[in-house]
Amino acid sequence: MSTEAPALLLALDLAGVFAFAVNGALTALRVARLDIVGVVTLGMITALGGGILRDILIDDLPPATFSDWRYLAVAAGGGLIAFAAAHRLDRLSTPITVLDAAGLSLFAVTGASKALDFGLGPAQAVILGAVTGVGGGTLRDVLVRQVPTVLSSGLYAVPALVAATVVAVAVELDAYGPPVAIGAAAACFAIRMLGVHFDLNAPSPPSPRPRPPDTD
Amino acid sequence: MSTEAPALLLALDLAGVFAFAVNGALTALRVARLDIVGVVTLGMITALGGGILRDILIDDLPPATFSDWRYLAVAAGGGLIAFAAAHRLDRLSTPITVLDAAGLSLFAVTGASKALDFGLGPAQAVILGAVTGVGGGTLRDVLVRQVPTVLSSGLYAVPALVAATVVAVAVELDAYGPPVAIGAAAACFAIRMLGVHFDLNAPSPPSPRPRPPDTD
Amino acid sequence: MSTEAPALLLALDLAGVFAFAVNGALTALRVARLDIVGVVTLGMITALGGGILRDILIDDLPPATFSDWRYLAVAAGGGLIAFAAAHRLDRLSTPITVLDAAGLSLFAVTGASKALDFGLGPAQAVILGAVTGVGGGTLRDVLVRQVPTVLSSGLYAVPALVAATVVAVAVELDAYGPPVAIGAAAACFAIRMLGVHFDLNAPSPPSPRPRPPDTD
Repeated sequence: MSTEAPALLLALDLAGVFAFAVNGALTALRVARLDIVGVVTLGMITALGGGILRDILIDDLPPATFSDWRYLAVAAGGGLIAFAAAHRLDRLSTPITVLDAAGLSLFAVTGASKALDFGLGPAQAVILGAVTGVGGGTLRDVLVRQVPTVLSSGLYAVPALVAATVVAVAVELDAYGPPVAIGAAAACFAIRMLGVHFDLNAPSPPSPRPRPPDTD
Repeated sequence: MSTEAPALLLALDLAGVFAFAVNGALTALRVARLDIVGVVTLGMITALGGGILRDILIDDLPPATFSDWRYLAVAAGGGLIAFAAAHRLDRLSTPITVLDAAGLSLFAVTGASKALDFGLGPAQAVILGAVTGVGGGTLRDVLVRQVPTVLSSGLYAVPALVAATVVAVAVELDAYGPPVAIGAAAACFAIRMLGVHFDLNAPSPPSPRPRPPDTD
Repeated sequence: MSTEAPALLLALDLAGVFAFAVNGALTALRVARLDIVGVVTLGMITALGGGILRDILIDDLPPATFSDWRYLAVAAGGGLIAFAAAHRLDRLSTPITVLDAAGLSLFAVTGASKALDFGLGPAQAVILGAVTGVGGGTLRDVLVRQVPTVLSSGLYAVPALVAATVVAVAVELDAYGPPVAIGAAAACFAIRMLGVHFDLNAPSPPSPRPRPPDTD
């Protein structure tokens, strides 16, 4: 790990935490009129879920969330800001989507980067980057009883895999640093937003006939 | 850790396991007419989920559940007792609520206490206490497809945070022991039950206008 | 651990991964017309969830999934094969049920076996075998918003417990090897399929009167 990597990882991680905290809190306001505790709680779970999952899987326990107070502070702060600012927003869906894409992108990069730091192979790091990116949002969706975006939207896991792959390749080539990390996150963000804008999806099953629920 | 702390931790932990096991089993009977295996399974998940989550996060693995048979025995016993006794109860909602508050209170104390034993800072221990308290019930609610109480009820996470804070402060002041632990759990229980009784909630969002679901 | 145990464990584990990957992918096609990414993602989560849960709980981190590429490859391959082959199947419910029973049986055996290898006691290994067996399917059901089979179907956890018990007893008697492992999995599979076929369940609550949802 280069000497600048920890600071870079921390900065990107905290940016992702903030984006997901605001996103989770706005989601709580949108799908249910939760009170401030519920709003901040969902914001914190969304913000910290992906990173905690990553840290459990690479055995970096207690997770950074619990050993570095900045994660908790940024997550709680993001949730509170969203709670206070939500009434100024005419529509919540656009910021929710944009912030979700931002968190996804940042966490895909930090997840892959941290996995490589901990000695996992490139393929494993790519998967772990995607898991980190989609983890918090998946927990959020399960808790508010929505089908997780990672299942329903084709271009959600894919951009995360792209960003994580860029990181893994750059580390292999010894070219990893802030420009690559930010570029990888930006690429993920761009793909995700294009997918949302044009409602793109990955290929559907070969059989076009509607499949009614079977009866067992 | 004082010499009596492990015994105290174990006693409170097992009491919490029992309360949540009965609670989870009664919930299984209430929300769906599950058979004995489903009832005991939901009881055990509710009872053991919070502690397992805590032990994963502080890296005390395998969790106590798997290294100390008493956890499994108490969880399974609580589920079986609930299954056998449920038909004697006219209404299940009151015992479900009371037992949930008891488990929440006991686990908030043991979660914070164990986190401090493992060297986490006070703020982290407070959050981990709350996570331990709400974890099992949140798993329970997700499995039976309810919005988790921690999101929908303002005075659920708050009393857990209060109890965990009392524990953290007492440990800082070197005043932690059975009276403080039981007092903290009792305070959490009282706040929670008052919240249920008077239907209190934390503040709602500033904007009072109803927010229809956005269309993306 | 005997010298052949690791190879046996790996073979059974990968067979279970494949069965659950196809099962999860077919479930994704059945309950919602997900695109290829959603289908493969649900297949991989179903396939790898139980083993990851097991490895977290026995502290074998990073989980085999992330340190051995074969798990990822088999899980992804199973999902892709299911995606490609689904349109040839008239009904999805039969293969979904059979593959779920196969994954359950194989993972119950590998979960108990690996737990014993890591020094857990027999009772703990039995529970961990059941957790490994039902874990992936429970994640799958939560993500597609179904009540998990482990709660709704009595003969789901029970055969997993039977298979894990056979493994634990055989290890105690120093008689564990491929014949016992395959026999235990076959017994679990047979019990589960008989339960499905005859719609058997464990005993229901003593009180036969319908229990309307309480109003709090």
